[in-house]
Amino acid sequence: MRGVVLHAPGDVRVRDREDPRIVEPTDAVIRVAAACVCGSDLWPYRGANGPVHDRPMGHEYVGVVEQVGDEVRNVKPGEFVVGSFFASDNTCEICRAGYQSRCVNAQLVGASGTQAEYARIPLADGTLVAAPGVPGADLVPSLLTASDVLGTGWFAAVAAEAGPGRTVAVVGDGAVGLLGVLAARRLGAERIAIFSRHADRQKLALEFGATDVIPERGDEGVARLKDLLGGLGAHSAIEAVGTQESMMQAIRSTRAGGHVGYVGMAHDVRIPGDELFYSGVHLHGGPAPVRRFLPELIQMIWGRAIDPGRVFDLELPLEDAAEAYKAMDERRAIKALLRPEG
Amino acid sequence: MRGVVLHAPGDVRVRDREDPRIVEPTDAVIRVAAACVCGSDLWPYRGANGPVHDRPMGHEYVGVVEQVGDEVRNVKPGEFVVGSFFASDNTCEICRAGYQSRCVNAQLVGASGTQAEYARIPLADGTLVAAPGVPGADLVPSLLTASDVLGTGWFAAVAAEAGPGRTVAVVGDGAVGLLGVLAARRLGAERIAIFSRHADRQKLALEFGATDVIPERGDEGVARLKDLLGGLGAHSAIEAVGTQESMMQAIRSTRAGGHVGYVGMAHDVRIPGDELFYSGVHLHGGPAPVRRFLPELIQMIWGRAIDPGRVFDLELPLEDAAEAYKAMDERRAIKALLRPEG
Repeated sequence: MRGVVLHAPGDVRVRDREDPRIVEPTDAVIRVAAACVCGSDLWPYRGANGPVHDRPMGHEYVGVVEQVGDEVRNVKPGEFVVGSFFASDNTCEICRAGYQSRCVNAQLVGASGTQAEYARIPLADGTLVAAPGVPGADLVPSLLTASDVLGTGWFAAVAAEAGPGRTVAVVGDGAVGLLGVLAARRLGAERIAIFSRHADRQKLALEFGATDVIPERGDEGVARLKDLLGGLGAHSAIEAVGTQESMMQAIRSTRAGGHVGYVGMAHDVRIPGDELFYSGVHLHGGPAPVRRFLPELIQMIWGRAIDPGRVFDLELPLEDAAEAYKAMDERRAIKALLRPEG
Repeated sequence: MRGVVLHAPGDVRVRDREDPRIVEPTDAVIRVAAACVCGSDLWPYRGANGPVHDRPMGHEYVGVVEQVGDEVRNVKPGEFVVGSFFASDNTCEICRAGYQSRCVNAQLVGASGTQAEYARIPLADGTLVAAPGVPGADLVPSLLTASDVLGTGWFAAVAAEAGPGRTVAVVGDGAVGLLGVLAARRLGAERIAIFSRHADRQKLALEFGATDVIPERGDEGVARLKDLLGGLGAHSAIEAVGTQESMMQAIRSTRAGGHVGYVGMAHDVRIPGDELFYSGVHLHGGPAPVRRFLPELIQMIWGRAIDPGRVFDLELPLEDAAEAYKAMDERRAIKALLRPEG
């Protein structure tokens, strides 16, 4: 089959790779209908994670089940499925508490790379959720977002306790931040301010339900937010970047007793204990337990209650993966979808 | 009046100081029935907060109202009151959300020092809570704990979401940690493990409701805890020290999706973002909004449902404050009570 590898930082290639097969009786193999490039894929692409060599890429996916192992009960060949980027058994104590991304048997689906024609999904019963049927092409992008970026934005909004009567600040105007806006709106938040200085992202944020756009960053942005909110910080903040600056901006944007939901993959972040202490905020986040939200998100997408697929502003055949990475790296695209059968 | 000052690090003196008086119409002046030395007083005593000169000490207090300003409505002369170490208006949006220690008008009561015969309490209406009557001498120590150390342990347990069916790890065997044990037990926690290697503190922890004592520290302590709990971390951890080691021990003691309640005053703590990210814990704490819990805590103490005053294992006249500090600094005492009329 054909699949994307990061040959070296900045050098994305599409290669012939071995077809995935059932290894464990709990595995499934799916034919990938669509995959995409994640903001977190840009870290190794930019060399931030050190040397790489021909690393298979991609951890977001939707597709049709081709084959299942002997112990798989919940999905069957022919079904269209969405899965989380973390495989989980969905039965352990941690999973049952809703933290499937920290399942005691968790495996990174991305280890074998879903930017490919086929993918092996471990722990299929606990990881994959079947859609009500085979979706029309127009629903595929939205279902694909549920695999990570929507589930992650949703988790951030839930962790930030976005809800009725609450104000929400969103740090990060990438796909996760934008879908954090959508989630906060669906969860009933009253006012949603996003920090952004990119016209295309501002526009989408407003369409997803943002009420305010703040172009200022850092402490200047925080001051502007507090002006908007009558002097206090927001009840909730969504952190969707993963840098020291974004984390501190999220904490400082939040009032005492408020909640910061952080999902940006932390890079070189050191949270100063004294500032956190006096901030009085709740801090919660990490790799999103997307599996917790999948049934609900698939249902909303299927019923066309939400249209998260709009974060894809670039769609390319799998063979053009290099351009997809480049466009996202240069911020020409918010998020790029890859079609193996493109 | 007589009052304690920190003349310089390590040098506690009792001096003649000016009698406090009503400055603002929202003030009260109380005759201090009992004050005490806080673990946080040891930081400046040990020189950890830089140079000091004749700094008035103490922020924990119970006493009888002597005089109130013209605008004070909720307490009156002759009443026996307990107050928080942060004065708060108890009417602003932050207070109403239960975060009185971050009140928009918050003032540190400790600025004028309650280890003294009298103390001025700002924002008396929002800060002081009257006991049902004038307590017998045996209830005074317990009521005094409500002013900070019990309220702080209680907040830590609430922030850690200690409750029925949950396991709790307690990092720190000082008075706050010990009262965190008591709080977790009262809140219904199933199993409470405290890290401690001091026989006197272990004993009190067990009496307060701890089910397990772990003498190991750091990662060795965490491993021992997980052994006790069948492999996973605790649902809840209480951090009651404020160092890098204690904070990381609390985070590592907690399972994904669990809750860390931290109340140790953070000194030189830097929380690594990547480890926090993958821990999947909830982190909440800071200066305890003691005022939130005061009515409930006073009621429990008055009804002798709890006996938190047992953390005082040294009681001295105010004039002997220097010895009280020394005994706590050398860990000869868990917590020292000072009686102005001793």
